[in-house]
Amino acid sequence: MASDNASNLMVPDYEYGLFGRLRRDAGAAWASYIDHPFVRALGRGTLPKAWFQNFLIQDYLYLVQYARAYALAAYKSETLDDIRAANRTMTALLDVEMPLHVSYCREWGLSQAELEGAPPDLRMMAYANFFLERGASGDRLDLEIALAPCLVGYAEIAERLLADPSTVLEGNPYEPWIRSYSGAAYRATVAEAIIDLDALGRRRGAEARYASLIETFRMASLLEAQFWGIGWKEEAAG
Amino acid sequence: MASDNASNLMVPDYEYGLFGRLRRDAGAAWASYIDHPFVRALGRGTLPKAWFQNFLIQDYLYLVQYARAYALAAYKSETLDDIRAANRTMTALLDVEMPLHVSYCREWGLSQAELEGAPPDLRMMAYANFFLERGASGDRLDLEIALAPCLVGYAEIAERLLADPSTVLEGNPYEPWIRSYSGAAYRATVAEAIIDLDALGRRRGAEARYASLIETFRMASLLEAQFWGIGWKEEAAG
Amino acid sequence: MASDNASNLMVPDYEYGLFGRLRRDAGAAWASYIDHPFVRALGRGTLPKAWFQNFLIQDYLYLVQYARAYALAAYKSETLDDIRAANRTMTALLDVEMPLHVSYCREWGLSQAELEGAPPDLRMMAYANFFLERGASGDRLDLEIALAPCLVGYAEIAERLLADPSTVLEGNPYEPWIRSYSGAAYRATVAEAIIDLDALGRRRGAEARYASLIETFRMASLLEAQFWGIGWKEEAAG
Amino acid sequence: MASDNASNLMVPDYEYGLFGRLRRDAGAAWASYIDHPFVRALGRGTLPKAWFQNFLIQDYLYLVQYARAYALAAYKSETLDDIRAANRTMTALLDVEMPLHVSYCREWGLSQAELEGAPPDLRMMAYANFFLERGASGDRLDLEIALAPCLVGYAEIAERLLADPSTVLEGNPYEPWIRSYSGAAYRATVAEAIIDLDALGRRRGAEARYASLIETFRMASLLEAQFWGIGWKEEAAG
Repeated sequence: MASDNASNLMVPDYEYGLFGRLRRDAGAAWASYIDHPFVRALGRGTLPKAWFQNFLIQDYLYLVQYARAYALAAYKSETLDDIRAANRTMTALLDVEMPLHVSYCREWGLSQAELEGAPPDLRMMAYANFFLERGASGDRLDLEIALAPCLVGYAEIAERLLADPSTVLEGNPYEPWIRSYSGAAYRATVAEAIIDLDALGRRRGAEARYASLIETFRMASLLEAQFWGIGWKEEAAG
Repeated sequence: MASDNASNLMVPDYEYGLFGRLRRDAGAAWASYIDHPFVRALGRGTLPKAWFQNFLIQDYLYLVQYARAYALAAYKSETLDDIRAANRTMTALLDVEMPLHVSYCREWGLSQAELEGAPPDLRMMAYANFFLERGASGDRLDLEIALAPCLVGYAEIAERLLADPSTVLEGNPYEPWIRSYSGAAYRATVAEAIIDLDALGRRRGAEARYASLIETFRMASLLEAQFWGIGWKEEAAG
Repeated sequence: MASDNASNLMVPDYEYGLFGRLRRDAGAAWASYIDHPFVRALGRGTLPKAWFQNFLIQDYLYLVQYARAYALAAYKSETLDDIRAANRTMTALLDVEMPLHVSYCREWGLSQAELEGAPPDLRMMAYANFFLERGASGDRLDLEIALAPCLVGYAEIAERLLADPSTVLEGNPYEPWIRSYSGAAYRATVAEAIIDLDALGRRRGAEARYASLIETFRMASLLEAQFWGIGWKEEAAG
Repeated sequence: MASDNASNLMVPDYEYGLFGRLRRDAGAAWASYIDHPFVRALGRGTLPKAWFQNFLIQDYLYLVQYARAYALAAYKSETLDDIRAANRTMTALLDVEMPLHVSYCREWGLSQAELEGAPPDLRMMAYANFFLERGASGDRLDLEIALAPCLVGYAEIAERLLADPSTVLEGNPYEPWIRSYSGAAYRATVAEAIIDLDALGRRRGAEARYASLIETFRMASLLEAQFWGIGWKEEAAG
């Protein structure tokens, strides 16, 4: 997650390597996540505040599980470099992302106590338990594939919103959210992650395992789409 | 799951020991599962056939994950007796329950190919991944607590339906389902499981861990209630 | 482990596929296991009884961990067929191999109580914890590779002893042991396992992961060689 | 591992709480580790350099596995505080301890390449796989108990050496090693760890699980004693 000047120049190539192939083959599932009504309402600034708050609360609880996923990745690593990389991500999540999320939530009127005390939504848990289960029963590649839609998707969503003529940035209360995930730092992180995933895939036999990996990726995309439902009232509550 | 003549005489005591305490404290969550509209419609014989078929298909896919859970329990065992007990349950699931389920499904017009080829419903996966995750990250007790609502709940549901004056058995296409889970064999299995869970709880410190265990039990109950939604069309599809 | 008439006709091909490649590349490590002084003393019938008893006791404790390994394999499976296969092996270990081992030990003057009460030798635990760790942190292929030396090696050892002119079967108290692992049933099991491992390797990308897999296989072979030391007094006690 | 001024004042109480009870009950196993000939030779400065180098090399490889253990602990945590604590230890190991170890090894004539390229000794792996296996198949408490002898033992050893009249510090090439583990920073870390272990034990039912925990602790102590053998030539090589 840390990024120096050089990597700040990197931009994600969503078509690249293993990730590119998975994204293409996940087709409708990927689209249901990337182009969810919640996302479009964010872009237009029409999402009701209370719905976004519901999302923010569960996104906080999600970050805790996401940190556990990178701990699992570190444990599942075969080399010191891989352990270090997972630890860096984990530390960035705990020491940078989570405090940032907490202050961002405060701007939306949510106290840390509210975040911590909120009951976990079943849709948040469904995705978290999915990637934790894939990681526990498979190897690090199975885990990383289950996490990839989360990591990469937010960058693609923010980029698409910026490019979309129906997006309204002026006066949009969600502009900071969009800016954050379309910023150079996050984009560089994603660019690197796409390259690293391809390298991990080569080392762990992604080609031969593709039938299994695409199922994992497709399912993770559907669970991400379902997650947006937390902030999209018309969907059934979990 | 196998039961000799002696154990056939056993009846479940839902108030007993650790299970009894969890069930009591799960209150509304337990009720939302045990007394779900799907269950009541089963008892009255008014559940549409197509809805029940949806449930049966996912229940088949669920059994595969349920067998994996007992494999996990065997791996997580500290004594040979505990390994053997988990292996017996696993073997009963694979060699008895699953073939029975397949022939039962055939009576409802569902071929084995349809069962095996069906895409997993997110609500089925949400529960399965929950107990597999609890089991992987915790110990055998955490796992067994997450599985208990499934194992015990079906017996209580069937028993309640038989005792409920609004239940109609005559001409009810779901009578065999109700009879199966209220039968002596299943009841004896559940009776033993309630006793075994209490013993496991004593050995693994359930008293001190109760705050965590009740959260697991409550969540599992909610996920079971959500599972019924697979056969209850009015709920949102996963 | 169960074998019908057809598979009884199968003989192991130690050069075949993934196993053959690993065995070849493990070279000296494999030889240190297959051709250990303990093994040669078994063939000549010169192994002191007390040393063999030490081995038998730890071999019993080992079987318990070996059963756990197949439980782990079942949990780590991606298909129902793979779950069933692991469960069959596990059941055969618990319900056939272990009772056989117990009666065999009785012939050597060891009671079941002695077997169950014996403190685990560090060398037995070193191998068991190795394959359980590889299995937990990797995927099913990592686990199966760590188990392969045990499963296949005993058949190769028994076969080599029978073919070795320095082997003395007449009056050799270890003849039943040699006969058991060179028998048609065990050989068919091993023949199948070698074929299944190759198939699993194809599905899980063994080619790309070979550098990691050969390390696992080599280490498992060394740990098997170290295990023989339990029955070979001149080696340091664990 | 990080310690502020306040915690620098803390000194370990080896008799305290759960750790104290385990240490007392592990008796001979604990003594075989704490009072190993390798340790005494360190104190007198009579340990041959080459033997110490063997130890240093494997201690480096051990640190990699030790970092994985804290990753596993983070994954196995139930609260954000527990995740953070495990992550801090892991980060300290990767970013502080390992670089320190590498420069210390350089003073002993060992390059980083030699450390990284060394084949793992079976005795190093036996301990590492033991705690990783206990952690994977049990819960966080099982894991922490398996790690406790390593964490606490080094402080007690260094403290005992300083108090031992047969210890010779002047001209002892191992003085920096002894000073490092008897320093205020390390002692404060250990003091906190002993308190935290007791608190974790209360939350996870240590009292009821004591029979299992003492077995884990005793085995870990024996494996630590065996680990010293890496630097004590008279013991058999692994």
